[in-house]
Amino acid sequence: MKNILILGAGQSTPHLIKYMLDLAKENKWTVTVCDKNLKLANERIKGYECGKAIEFDVNDEQLRKEQIKSADIVINFLAPIFQYLIALDCLTYGKNCVTASYEDMRIRDLDKDAKKKGILILNEMGLDPGIDHMSAMSLIMDIRSRGGYVTDFVSYGSGLPAPEVQSNPLRYTITWNPRNIVMAGFYGAQYLENHQLKIVSHNHLFQRTWQVDVDGVGTLEAYPNRDSLVYKDLFNLKKVKTMIRGTLRYPGWSETWLQIIKLGIPNEVLKISNLNEMSYAEFTELFLPVYSNGTKLHTRVANYLGINPTGKIMENLRWLGLFSEEKIKGNPQTSTEVMTDLLNEKLPLPVGERDMVILQHEIDAKFPEENKKERIISTLVEYGETEVFTAISKTVGIPTAIAAKLILNGEITETGTHIPTKPEIYSKVLKELEEIGIKFKDKREVF
Amino acid sequence: MKNILILGAGQSTPHLIKYMLDLAKENKWTVTVCDKNLKLANERIKGYECGKAIEFDVNDEQLRKEQIKSADIVINFLAPIFQYLIALDCLTYGKNCVTASYEDMRIRDLDKDAKKKGILILNEMGLDPGIDHMSAMSLIMDIRSRGGYVTDFVSYGSGLPAPEVQSNPLRYTITWNPRNIVMAGFYGAQYLENHQLKIVSHNHLFQRTWQVDVDGVGTLEAYPNRDSLVYKDLFNLKKVKTMIRGTLRYPGWSETWLQIIKLGIPNEVLKISNLNEMSYAEFTELFLPVYSNGTKLHTRVANYLGINPTGKIMENLRWLGLFSEEKIKGNPQTSTEVMTDLLNEKLPLPVGERDMVILQHEIDAKFPEENKKERIISTLVEYGETEVFTAISKTVGIPTAIAAKLILNGEITETGTHIPTKPEIYSKVLKELEEIGIKFKDKREVF
Repeated sequence: MKNILILGAGQSTPHLIKYMLDLAKENKWTVTVCDKNLKLANERIKGYECGKAIEFDVNDEQLRKEQIKSADIVINFLAPIFQYLIALDCLTYGKNCVTASYEDMRIRDLDKDAKKKGILILNEMGLDPGIDHMSAMSLIMDIRSRGGYVTDFVSYGSGLPAPEVQSNPLRYTITWNPRNIVMAGFYGAQYLENHQLKIVSHNHLFQRTWQVDVDGVGTLEAYPNRDSLVYKDLFNLKKVKTMIRGTLRYPGWSETWLQIIKLGIPNEVLKISNLNEMSYAEFTELFLPVYSNGTKLHTRVANYLGINPTGKIMENLRWLGLFSEEKIKGNPQTSTEVMTDLLNEKLPLPVGERDMVILQHEIDAKFPEENKKERIISTLVEYGETEVFTAISKTVGIPTAIAAKLILNGEITETGTHIPTKPEIYSKVLKELEEIGIKFKDKREVF
Repeated sequence: MKNILILGAGQSTPHLIKYMLDLAKENKWTVTVCDKNLKLANERIKGYECGKAIEFDVNDEQLRKEQIKSADIVINFLAPIFQYLIALDCLTYGKNCVTASYEDMRIRDLDKDAKKKGILILNEMGLDPGIDHMSAMSLIMDIRSRGGYVTDFVSYGSGLPAPEVQSNPLRYTITWNPRNIVMAGFYGAQYLENHQLKIVSHNHLFQRTWQVDVDGVGTLEAYPNRDSLVYKDLFNLKKVKTMIRGTLRYPGWSETWLQIIKLGIPNEVLKISNLNEMSYAEFTELFLPVYSNGTKLHTRVANYLGINPTGKIMENLRWLGLFSEEKIKGNPQTSTEVMTDLLNEKLPLPVGERDMVILQHEIDAKFPEENKKERIISTLVEYGETEVFTAISKTVGIPTAIAAKLILNGEITETGTHIPTKPEIYSKVLKELEEIGIKFKDKREVF
């Protein structure tokens, strides 16, 4: 009887947990789901005898260590800040560990210790990062096997509402951690465009957008996503002249979000007292210079930002509730937390509607022996089933689940800390993803 | 024979070390100065028998613990990121510790442990933070003792070149850690102005300036310094309607620095490859959109920022070297490091010139029983002696040195973690500062 420990039962986990539970009986597994919200954990395992729900506080050291000690594998879907803590415990007790989070440097430094202990700490096993790495590596290896090399690598990822969803003017719905939406690009972005290295700061990022066509979806907008150059080394793309990772949105999101950044709302450092005694309008007022006359808040905001007071952007800011006289709900401590709560409230995925996930690689390759060039556009568009079984929870959770299964069954035998850029890991996972229909469509053009 | 351990021999330490060395003989002290640069440590103790210099790597755990174990007091002038590490060692070995750094939350959490161990961890014991707290508290306590309360608290601090120094058009010289100049205000600022709480983000901060007159110096500009609201609680100013801490510069600095922020240069997170193969002009190019025609870099920068291509701001950016075809020196890893190196190179305090330190409190108080109001402007202007014995090293180092002496001699007996807002600490230190001529001038107006 093997025990699979899943930490976190949040909105990215329904598919992951169901996948493991569905396989549990034949494999003789117990699936233990831990969350600070016991009700949520119980909901996830409902109807399965082999499932077990536990109320879990990650800072309760004794409980945490007990659970990890008695697990055969740990699937960690807690917030990224706990990644290191859990990895250390897995190291102590010699347990394999899979996450969908970005691998931070401190985790990378555990590589030797993990090898010594004979365990695998596998990160970035979700969608983006995750399927994006695996599918990119698979395309790159195919180009290399045919004698070519990559000259331009542009890759997009996004979780969005499906095209038919019109529940809000921003055409965005919250299907993962909204804190990451609010803090997106805070430390700027870096990319390579036609041999030119480019750095964009937070206050310009949502201005540096371009149009992207996605088959079956239409024309979207993209902005640069973090440090694209990291992937130049990771994918070993030595001769690449363009290397861009972008995030996709429906047109109009970025011009609105730029103004929220200009106001200064994304800020997790300054603690603001008594936020829950203010209205949202009073909150917005914090970010304007001192006033003494009777001009209305929304006029002053538009003037301060230098934008049209009656246009679409101001309409969006109003939709988000930033001029509302309502009292601030909950107990936020920072402006980021106020905005996160507003996004959760104003931009839910409506019941009965479905979300959508897009990954798209646009790769140019050169084949010197044949003296030809090839452009490959490889696209994955996945739609959600319900507002719980979303496309994002499927594409984040299922690859992690497959990896966990392959490790448990001895089909992945690597040790150390890894992200899925090795064929030994990604080829098996991609194959299983295809089998259940998570599959890219490729268009090729030779010129 | 007591052993005083001074960690760090950087530009803030000459006065501190000399103060301790001058008292060492009569007090039977050894003064051990540790720095990664042994030559520098040796220079600081030259001519004193009771001085000892040690080559010191803070990450060498054995050496670090040995030194702290054999000390009677630790004066920590290492970079702030090592504050916690040193505090933990001081706790382990039961040693008192004094720093001039901001007390971070993790240090505050050591209060109970420090009390239990019977030691004092005293932080913010320099100029700003340091003398500013002590002098402010002294003014506030005086107002309270006369039956009044503070309605408006505005306080300025700065280290600048003396007014006669004209060595560069920005009228700024580097007399402390230039990394802090480059990253100033990265997380925005918060203050209270006439009952209105205001938050300013990094990209607006150097635009939100105002003029300040300083007696004997002239008219300077101020921008909001970090989170002023922290001091509302710290000073227990319940009824204050204005609470602002500002940083002073000569006019023209802020309008230039605003553009450096708009370019996106302050960034410690993105690692940039091969910076030392680029020229400064190529470095600046990183922050502009991709180009394909022949327009000159400085024209494109001005156009991108929307500023006059031939004005003072562009002249300042040129002075800083941002359009230079020279190769980047050193081995910087981030744009912040490139800018830090440039400031060090372009804005030194010239040999034979002196720096200047300003602290100014502008306090309005109400005395309800007498039905009167009082405005107090309390100003400290201190000039440096040489380019080594600077005003900043004097005003940062001497209060720390005095506190260390008072702890060693048993005149400060507090335990736990503290900043100098308690009369038991600040009154004695302020008295000794006055005796050696570091003294505020007060102007009072009753209305």
